[in-house]
Amino acid sequence: MNKLIEAIDLNFDKYLSELVEFLRYKSISTNPTYSKDVKACASYLAKHLRSIGFKNAEVLDTKGHPICYASYEVNPTYPTVLFYGHYDVQPPEPLELWESPPFEPTIKDGQIVARGASDDKGQVFCHIKALETILKETGTLPLNVKILIEGEEEVGSPSLETFLIENEEQLKCDAVVISDTPMYAKDVPSICTSLRGMLYTELTIKTGKTDLHSGQHGGAVPNAIHHLMGIISSLKNNDGRVMVPGFYDDVKERTPNEKEELNRIPFYDKNYLRETGCDRIEGELGYSVLERRWYRPTLECNGIWGGYIGDGAKTVTPCKASVKISMRLVSEQDPNKIFQQLKKYLEELVPEGVEFNLDQISGVGYPVNVNNNEKAIEAAVDAIHTVHGKKPIFQGEGGSIPIVHDFKHLLNVPIVLMGFNLIEDKIHAPNEQFGVENYRNGIKIAALFYKNLGDKLRRPKK
Amino acid sequence: MNKLIEAIDLNFDKYLSELVEFLRYKSISTNPTYSKDVKACASYLAKHLRSIGFKNAEVLDTKGHPICYASYEVNPTYPTVLFYGHYDVQPPEPLELWESPPFEPTIKDGQIVARGASDDKGQVFCHIKALETILKETGTLPLNVKILIEGEEEVGSPSLETFLIENEEQLKCDAVVISDTPMYAKDVPSICTSLRGMLYTELTIKTGKTDLHSGQHGGAVPNAIHHLMGIISSLKNNDGRVMVPGFYDDVKERTPNEKEELNRIPFYDKNYLRETGCDRIEGELGYSVLERRWYRPTLECNGIWGGYIGDGAKTVTPCKASVKISMRLVSEQDPNKIFQQLKKYLEELVPEGVEFNLDQISGVGYPVNVNNNEKAIEAAVDAIHTVHGKKPIFQGEGGSIPIVHDFKHLLNVPIVLMGFNLIEDKIHAPNEQFGVENYRNGIKIAALFYKNLGDKLRRPKK
Repeated sequence: MNKLIEAIDLNFDKYLSELVEFLRYKSISTNPTYSKDVKACASYLAKHLRSIGFKNAEVLDTKGHPICYASYEVNPTYPTVLFYGHYDVQPPEPLELWESPPFEPTIKDGQIVARGASDDKGQVFCHIKALETILKETGTLPLNVKILIEGEEEVGSPSLETFLIENEEQLKCDAVVISDTPMYAKDVPSICTSLRGMLYTELTIKTGKTDLHSGQHGGAVPNAIHHLMGIISSLKNNDGRVMVPGFYDDVKERTPNEKEELNRIPFYDKNYLRETGCDRIEGELGYSVLERRWYRPTLECNGIWGGYIGDGAKTVTPCKASVKISMRLVSEQDPNKIFQQLKKYLEELVPEGVEFNLDQISGVGYPVNVNNNEKAIEAAVDAIHTVHGKKPIFQGEGGSIPIVHDFKHLLNVPIVLMGFNLIEDKIHAPNEQFGVENYRNGIKIAALFYKNLGDKLRRPKK
Repeated sequence: MNKLIEAIDLNFDKYLSELVEFLRYKSISTNPTYSKDVKACASYLAKHLRSIGFKNAEVLDTKGHPICYASYEVNPTYPTVLFYGHYDVQPPEPLELWESPPFEPTIKDGQIVARGASDDKGQVFCHIKALETILKETGTLPLNVKILIEGEEEVGSPSLETFLIENEEQLKCDAVVISDTPMYAKDVPSICTSLRGMLYTELTIKTGKTDLHSGQHGGAVPNAIHHLMGIISSLKNNDGRVMVPGFYDDVKERTPNEKEELNRIPFYDKNYLRETGCDRIEGELGYSVLERRWYRPTLECNGIWGGYIGDGAKTVTPCKASVKISMRLVSEQDPNKIFQQLKKYLEELVPEGVEFNLDQISGVGYPVNVNNNEKAIEAAVDAIHTVHGKKPIFQGEGGSIPIVHDFKHLLNVPIVLMGFNLIEDKIHAPNEQFGVENYRNGIKIAALFYKNLGDKLRRPKK
């Protein structure tokens, strides 16, 4: 394995200049003005993959921006890994805050500064350069590899699910690897083994046909805001527990071992408060902050409106008030089942003479959990251990990444989420960066990961 | 007294055509396009007052639309009554819903249909024609009379308070009479003896510097909407009682006699629900609907907003949420004192690490109460009794009419609020009307009122 690492170090200058070339493409997926640039970027990528040995690499059209797809079959009886990434980037605005032009990559203070440096072009190239190194050094790959790099991640991957469904057979694999999340912290490499699911709803309360004069009728007629308040107050108790009956039925408590492991992760309230801009930490009694964010479900109001919201004073008792309520789900919680439970609870809460309407908005997201003991995870752990000299921590992610669920759901295989960049790398913001050494380590980890994974999966199962 | 009533009936056709003439003026105060029409209306009014015997009637400029002022001094030792009304009207839009043009008064089915018919030109003319009749029949008036008719009532009377302060000496009187409210119901004449006061506030809760990603941080950071909910829920309990400490300190309970009187007023829940478009009645436990609307203070949220209120799903934990809260006040409640009590209560409620800001918006309104035993009220009761053949009920008004408080506060005299039109007369709406017989009765009641008031106030006090 030292041979691979040595080869990466030896070729690193070339790998760096190739990434710079990739970063020059203005593959901004949100803005139609850049459609040609997006396409050119996909073509470049396919050409580049062909040049390193993925001879069938091609650009596939979708209803939106194209997908770059490639595969390398060593032996049909060998296991297969699918690498997923995206070559599209966020718009660079506001331009005036960039210290160097976003599409003229600049190496400064050990950082590659450019739009897409971390998200996700730099991390995509970690995998491509890793595979290139293995191919050059060994003339083959340790397992079959499929590469799927899309151009619509920053606009919510509207074409990907269809693509996955239509190409299920072609995409079959034993594991998926994605590098599109950051490490837990500098010097704290991590693998993400869970994502929370999501249910997003909009609740409207109606107490009458029209707003009424709050002088003439105030104190005698129902007020939609007050009813909505009462309902929202009944959704969560003072201990931060969600009060919807059945809500926790499918939530698995972390084992004492898992809790202990979680407590070993460095976490400082003070830093967290500074990072979030809050003056207090809140949440479910009896759980640490990381547990609340990663492994506990929660219910949050995301927006509220009702009555008169213009300037000055208008004296009405509002007949209508609405709130957006989203829930993050964990373990085996099913967003559709939770929606029904919430609806039933509201039917009990809302008094006679008051109407309510509960809508589900945006698609649901199922929680994703990957077993730490999967061989694919072990392969990643070992690779990171070798490169960083320390084992990665297992972390959760409080947010939902719908594509991950799509992969998990449609391909039904373990997903390895290992990120190489840092939280402070300003993705989606001006001066996005990716550490030169993070890039180098990323290539090494990816190379060892593919090597380890081949070894592990090709061993006969006990 | 029969002589006056006979004279009114005899001259009624003339009085009706004169009202029609008055109603033709497009004295729309909200729209600058009609400034000249407003001014022309004031000039007409002054001229008309001079023609019936108010020789000094004049148009007084203000920063906005002019005031029409007149006085008739019988004898400086005599008591004085001040009549207040307004000659400006609401805009007539939407024009397409009018069955006859709003400024071409039409008599149809016993109704005078025109913008301003009830609010307030028709009711103003009840008083003017009453005074004209008395002057013609008796050659004098039973007491000194001052007439103040403004042109800015429909835009909130911005110039009136200054005018009252600057002319305090000139406006001195023993009672004020206003006809700008409706009767309680057809066949239920009423005198309004109380108005609720008002305090209007805006409360903002801040839980951080920025909205946060509800996936990454939801369940661990404070959410401004949830904090706002908690606070609002603590403002009123399940019995409809306001929980701000001290809130009820200056609220006088109605006596058993007053309650009994209130219970005799015809009121039907079913009608009220139909009228308001609600399916349930709510409010403070232990009080009837009319008591809640007229004689009990209340606290209502008028508008609320916070977080993401656009279409679709945005996953944020909001750092800011706001609510407009207004309180209607009764008896001796002081809006400024209540504001301080509310602020102090919020200081206790809002936890550490959460910021709040409470602003008073729009001017405060003190509650207004008129003693039923005032001679001015007795004079109105007797006049109504004579004309309608039944005594008026005493009613409250849940809303606040700031000018009434200004008069009460600055002139410190009883205010007689007796209305002649009906709730169903569509003021501020298309096809505003005033019953021909309501106009006739209004003139008669006003005439008898001035006569009675002169008699009562000129009698030596016991």
